[in-house]
Amino acid sequence: MKFYNKAILPQGFKANGISCGIKKSRKLDLALVFSQFPAAAAVMSTTNDIAAAPVIVNSAHLKAARKFHAVIANSGNANAFCGKTGIAAAERMSAAAARALGVKKESVFVASTGVIGRQLPVEKITAAAPALAAGLSKNGIAKAARAIMTTDKFVKAATVKFSIDKKPVTICAVAKGAGMISPDMATMLVFIVTDAAVSSAALSSALKAAVGNSFNCITVDGCMSTNDTVICLANHAAGNRPVAAGKKDSALFTFGLETVCLDLAKKMVRDGEGASKFIRIEVCGAKTRAQAKKVALSIANSNLFKTAMFASSQNVRGRIVAAAGAAGAGIKEKELKIGFTSLHRAEISVRVGIGNGRSSAVIYTSDLTHKYIKINAEYN
Amino acid sequence: MKFYNKAILPQGFKANGISCGIKKSRKLDLALVFSQFPAAAAVMSTTNDIAAAPVIVNSAHLKAARKFHAVIANSGNANAFCGKTGIAAAERMSAAAARALGVKKESVFVASTGVIGRQLPVEKITAAAPALAAGLSKNGIAKAARAIMTTDKFVKAATVKFSIDKKPVTICAVAKGAGMISPDMATMLVFIVTDAAVSSAALSSALKAAVGNSFNCITVDGCMSTNDTVICLANHAAGNRPVAAGKKDSALFTFGLETVCLDLAKKMVRDGEGASKFIRIEVCGAKTRAQAKKVALSIANSNLFKTAMFASSQNVRGRIVAAAGAAGAGIKEKELKIGFTSLHRAEISVRVGIGNGRSSAVIYTSDLTHKYIKINAEYN
Repeated sequence: MKFYNKAILPQGFKANGISCGIKKSRKLDLALVFSQFPAAAAVMSTTNDIAAAPVIVNSAHLKAARKFHAVIANSGNANAFCGKTGIAAAERMSAAAARALGVKKESVFVASTGVIGRQLPVEKITAAAPALAAGLSKNGIAKAARAIMTTDKFVKAATVKFSIDKKPVTICAVAKGAGMISPDMATMLVFIVTDAAVSSAALSSALKAAVGNSFNCITVDGCMSTNDTVICLANHAAGNRPVAAGKKDSALFTFGLETVCLDLAKKMVRDGEGASKFIRIEVCGAKTRAQAKKVALSIANSNLFKTAMFASSQNVRGRIVAAAGAAGAGIKEKELKIGFTSLHRAEISVRVGIGNGRSSAVIYTSDLTHKYIKINAEYN
Repeated sequence: MKFYNKAILPQGFKANGISCGIKKSRKLDLALVFSQFPAAAAVMSTTNDIAAAPVIVNSAHLKAARKFHAVIANSGNANAFCGKTGIAAAERMSAAAARALGVKKESVFVASTGVIGRQLPVEKITAAAPALAAGLSKNGIAKAARAIMTTDKFVKAATVKFSIDKKPVTICAVAKGAGMISPDMATMLVFIVTDAAVSSAALSSALKAAVGNSFNCITVDGCMSTNDTVICLANHAAGNRPVAAGKKDSALFTFGLETVCLDLAKKMVRDGEGASKFIRIEVCGAKTRAQAKKVALSIANSNLFKTAMFASSQNVRGRIVAAAGAAGAGIKEKELKIGFTSLHRAEISVRVGIGNGRSSAVIYTSDLTHKYIKINAEYN
């Protein structure tokens, strides 16, 4: 399996990114990813009680159709907490893309990211849809990746190439995400496309596993978003024997998917709002993975831990103790062992033993800095 | 009931605070509060899995004795995560105070606050105990309150005076707490003394109710400490008919206790590390109080909410939506109503309606500022 630190679209996919005027800065704010062949799809979305309109519309589309063609996404406005008007706007956005592409409305997914609670200026999107579609190209994926950025400081993309059934396949993913990042999905949009032939069931279970081991293992600020969405399209263009759930090929495909997801998840943490350090927290010796994850998350989300990391303070040891104990995971002082690599480096590994159990969990997080405050106090 | 914004010791109590050399700054770091009469006691402590040594020693004392005389407390070192050596140190601290006061060891409670994971220099405390006891006085409570401070910017004290059974009684409390503040107790030490005659059972249930409506309704950074302790001593010097659980006098006594506790809880939030704003979050229309509290806490502990508050950003509305939805309390967008007073004032009231239920909850919190980062990155 070969890894590429950039987006390389698989066969049968094109993309584009333009500015339609939602962002006052006139930066790119509208993206389209399109498969010329009908594709199987899997979608995972936020578990926030207040799901954004695109999240609601996507789950309706998933029920209404079996094959899919595209994702249209905007940045600069989350289209969340906008009531029925918001739902209608998300549907119009999807319909405009479908019209421009000549496909069914239900075959187009929607995503939005940005400020919550302001009505989406959907006319700007519908007006721009024809030009957006007309400009689709193989290399347009770079612009699409830029068009979904908000507070992101760099483009996040990854590609793997490998063979299934002796046919070369590609999995390519682009993502945005830097703040409001917490497990169980974050403020992040992730679009994954592959030319592998994969059954819908196999695609869903592979995505669930990959997300569980990547995006659900990162936290920047413990804040869960209303808009988190991971969409995966598999268009069968590689011509391999379709990957079916539970078969050997399925493990290989899942590994490929997990590779790009974990890479993007780590990039989100590195780009964590104001982050100056990348921190890997491993909790081991746990009775269950759930216990280990509970403790790791409690440490990762502790503001006191995160500020001590920012300061490279030896005090961090006590803060790990307090946060581990506060997890409510039933740990004991005499079984608690704490180790960490040099606090003065940009990448820090923390290892916490909590007993003699065989389970462990890893969480990736960033420190809490003056820049985080500045970014989030000034964000509009 | 008359309220005083300072500590006024009830009959039969004396206190003192000195510097014994734990804090390098030579600021006061050792406090003693003493009742000349044997007192009933109630204690509430952290639910952190890694409880500090004083917390463990106090619960042993509570089982071993029925009447109590004193609390000795140090700042500058938490005596937490110090193993058996820490337990022995807490016991020596208690024994030294008992010897100096001429009372039984088990009748003296212990408390510590400061850095976690460093051995307590207990010799400094045992050496200072005789002078600490010799200097006890009625007015010494002011020094005791100063001696338990860590990052606190001001002394926290409150007193109420009222009558029970036609006898004048006093409830006086001092506290420390500014960071690592989260419900289910915080990094806080609270010592409450009263001359009211109260049965042990009535004292315990009154303290539980008062803490539930005060210290368990505040959060500064969502971080739960290893050392949180609230100790209440009732020495019967007022000569009233003893307050018994469930009787009329009990409700009055509980109200008095809650009044000082809520005042101190609010003072902790006002003194929240780096806080520039005092925020009251009320969630109403809930099915149960637990549902309301879950939503209120999720908002109060959201870093994105807290930074938006710091910046007086209208963006705060969207962040309340995201945090309310992330609580996992089963709320619906169409039932969510959000209101707040001017964001440019130092005190802000946020009201969130989540349905047609009759339950509500109030949480007090502060904003997240550059100063929080500075204080916690530099704290040693």
